[in-house]
Amino acid sequence: MEFTSERRLDDDVLERGFTLGGIPGLLWTPTTASAPCPLVLLGHPGGLQRMYPRLLGRARHAVSGGFAAATIELPGGGDRPRMTAVDEARADLQRVLAAGERVDDGIVDRLVLPLVDAAVPEWRAALDALLALPGIGGPVGFSGGVIAIAVRLAVVEPRIAAALLFAGSYVPRAVLEEARRVTIPLLVLLQWDDTGNDRQMALDLFDAFGSEEKTLHANTGGHTGVPGFEGDDGDRFFARHLR
Amino acid sequence: MEFTSERRLDDDVLERGFTLGGIPGLLWTPTTASAPCPLVLLGHPGGLQRMYPRLLGRARHAVSGGFAAATIELPGGGDRPRMTAVDEARADLQRVLAAGERVDDGIVDRLVLPLVDAAVPEWRAALDALLALPGIGGPVGFSGGVIAIAVRLAVVEPRIAAALLFAGSYVPRAVLEEARRVTIPLLVLLQWDDTGNDRQMALDLFDAFGSEEKTLHANTGGHTGVPGFEGDDGDRFFARHLR
Repeated sequence: MEFTSERRLDDDVLERGFTLGGIPGLLWTPTTASAPCPLVLLGHPGGLQRMYPRLLGRARHAVSGGFAAATIELPGGGDRPRMTAVDEARADLQRVLAAGERVDDGIVDRLVLPLVDAAVPEWRAALDALLALPGIGGPVGFSGGVIAIAVRLAVVEPRIAAALLFAGSYVPRAVLEEARRVTIPLLVLLQWDDTGNDRQMALDLFDAFGSEEKTLHANTGGHTGVPGFEGDDGDRFFARHLR
Repeated sequence: MEFTSERRLDDDVLERGFTLGGIPGLLWTPTTASAPCPLVLLGHPGGLQRMYPRLLGRARHAVSGGFAAATIELPGGGDRPRMTAVDEARADLQRVLAAGERVDDGIVDRLVLPLVDAAVPEWRAALDALLALPGIGGPVGFSGGVIAIAVRLAVVEPRIAAALLFAGSYVPRAVLEEARRVTIPLLVLLQWDDTGNDRQMALDLFDAFGSEEKTLHANTGGHTGVPGFEGDDGDRFFARHLR
């Protein structure tokens, strides 16, 4: 892991850019912490620069709650090499949605599964590097992003102790099965009127999770309309489980 | 409204029993408030004495948030005259559930609609009396209890500014239609594994509400297993809308 930039955003937050095996990432840490912080990994749909303002808002929430926050670019996202087959599947999905047709499982599988397979080892490698830094301890939370990536991470990565999932993207049927093996505490956000998502599938996914503590927060509004108070609820969820 | 008892529970909470037209009720107020408090009405399934420990817990939450809290006995509940037809419908429902049969609309209508028709005018009369007391102002929130009563109150009672609903009882189809006319902010609690409830109907009801701000909190566990952190979430919901 090499740091490529460093700036103090205000008195309390230090933002550092880094690369890890050619993958760009961002790390936000409190400047005032006296002990190693728990870490919250910030998921996103790909495109760190485009997502930066929202990631920064979420990072500030995490840091003000006493956590470090970090994220890395997704495979095929931002300036990273495209994943052509995934791009084709995404274009197919958009055509189907625009035509008001039923989204078939094949498209969702082609869109999501290769991304999960490629991304999960990268996030685990990032976790190795981040947890080796002074000032960052455990436990680790995962927050938002492509829900299928979060589900796989929750199954395979024992260092992740709690996850705040955003049920805002299509989920392959195989991920429903994977969800039964998730046992960590979950807070699942669902935008009730998200036209680019399958509400019933999101509810089926929530039902499938094996976790003893799982909470669904569904709110009115579309994909990007998550109410501000959910940020506070997310802080409290992580405070309960990462402290 | 006549007060029948008064005791100071601790330094901060005054509990008073009252009757209003023969209906018993309880009122909890902060002892230290300097200005009139917003009021939270505490719904329940009937049987004030049986429900007292849980009502008191919820009242303490409300008072610690700076609100007054009050409740009245339901028609047919506690020592009030039985509602024979409602009791029969309840027994029918329990038989059907025990036999694992489908709950038909007729039973639910017979169980819930007469209760709603009888209870709602009583809660409105209680509101008249409570808001006339020194130390209690508006706005008013409604919390929990029989969800069909809360829905009707939210439609007909303009003094209710926000409602925390517990989707923990069967809902007549007619109430789904009524729900479309609800426009106040809502927080709806659903226990995902409540075997004495119809989860799909609860989700349909959430979908039907006309409110621009509505949030569903679904948690694992049965009817009485609402996690403690939902009490805090409820406080914050009312703090957002009643202050």
